[in-house]
Amino acid sequence: MAKVRFRISMSLDGFTSGPEQSVDNPLGIGGEGLHEWAIELASWRRPHGLEGGEVNASTAVMEESLAGIGATIMGRNMFGGHPGPWDPVRPWKGWWGANPPFHHPVFVVTHHARPPLALEGGTTFTFVTAGIEEALAQARRAAQGRDVAVAGGASIAQAYLKAGLVDEMEISLAPILLGGGERLFDGVGALPELKLARTVAAPGVTHFKFARR
Amino acid sequence: MAKVRFRISMSLDGFTSGPEQSVDNPLGIGGEGLHEWAIELASWRRPHGLEGGEVNASTAVMEESLAGIGATIMGRNMFGGHPGPWDPVRPWKGWWGANPPFHHPVFVVTHHARPPLALEGGTTFTFVTAGIEEALAQARRAAQGRDVAVAGGASIAQAYLKAGLVDEMEISLAPILLGGGERLFDGVGALPELKLARTVAAPGVTHFKFARR
Repeated sequence: MAKVRFRISMSLDGFTSGPEQSVDNPLGIGGEGLHEWAIELASWRRPHGLEGGEVNASTAVMEESLAGIGATIMGRNMFGGHPGPWDPVRPWKGWWGANPPFHHPVFVVTHHARPPLALEGGTTFTFVTAGIEEALAQARRAAQGRDVAVAGGASIAQAYLKAGLVDEMEISLAPILLGGGERLFDGVGALPELKLARTVAAPGVTHFKFARR
Repeated sequence: MAKVRFRISMSLDGFTSGPEQSVDNPLGIGGEGLHEWAIELASWRRPHGLEGGEVNASTAVMEESLAGIGATIMGRNMFGGHPGPWDPVRPWKGWWGANPPFHHPVFVVTHHARPPLALEGGTTFTFVTAGIEEALAQARRAAQGRDVAVAGGASIAQAYLKAGLVDEMEISLAPILLGGGERLFDGVGALPELKLARTVAAPGVTHFKFARR
């Protein structure tokens, strides 16, 4: 069966965003330090429409995390905008502009219903109010046999981990301390179904891949 | 001035011991997985009176963490035994047998006064009830210009971090998930006075060294 995979950047003290997240500062204080290693990579810059960039030991990890994905699931906070019901006049369209980097169906887990949002380049956002299992069922169908990525943030990744629905997890550990924010491994237990598959030490980051035993 | 240093093994989910610590299981459930990389090293086995062992990328890290230390500070839980006042008849003498691996003065931060305990090989345990700053002052004097190591556990390391008294911190990250236990980075903040100095990827562990800016 197709896999449920996620890759997330985490600080050494366990946070996937810094403290005091807001619309103006969605990564929280210091949170941009989680992603510096990625933003420098050619393999991240290309799908985001940016030129140049480096090739290093993270390249294969990044390419692997982007390959073979047929659909993506994310939480409301990652899709962003504002808490509560969607603005009926100027509904939030995500952080990614007119042509988001996904190029496949994306399912947003939210409490607030909304019609699907089709953007350029094959990215369609579908808003699912029936919970994480329904979002996964819809994503699996849309992925047509390819894998489903859980993009984040921390709370939706936690929800899938707690439900035992994750087949592969890649933690990209940034050697920084954020001191607060959203903590990925909070109340998810020891996850005995997942086993370390490999470690990659790269400039500014160490990647730990876990896979179902 | 001589430095205050500590090195501690931590799980990927941030714990320095597993859940359900007890006298019978002082590392908590799964906690032995934090130290497997170390126990295999010749440079750890030698001071613990064990033969054989490996030489790998962790060797230099372990030797550096043991070198130049003139005194060690630890918390009551790491010294171990039982909570509350010391048993007057058979006082706990530590986990390490008649000849502990320290071979220098050790200061145990505790709420319960007790006379010093001198064991073989130059290790003397002094019990300090006046708090972490007094323990550090005594350890600095005893170290006679060499560095002071904070051995652990998590709560005493946290106390020194919160007080801004740590000059060097080495986190030896074991790629395991414990799901619970003592969390090192809980309420210590982002520690802006410490900066990543180097990373060493080794078999079964990645070492992140932070030093005062």
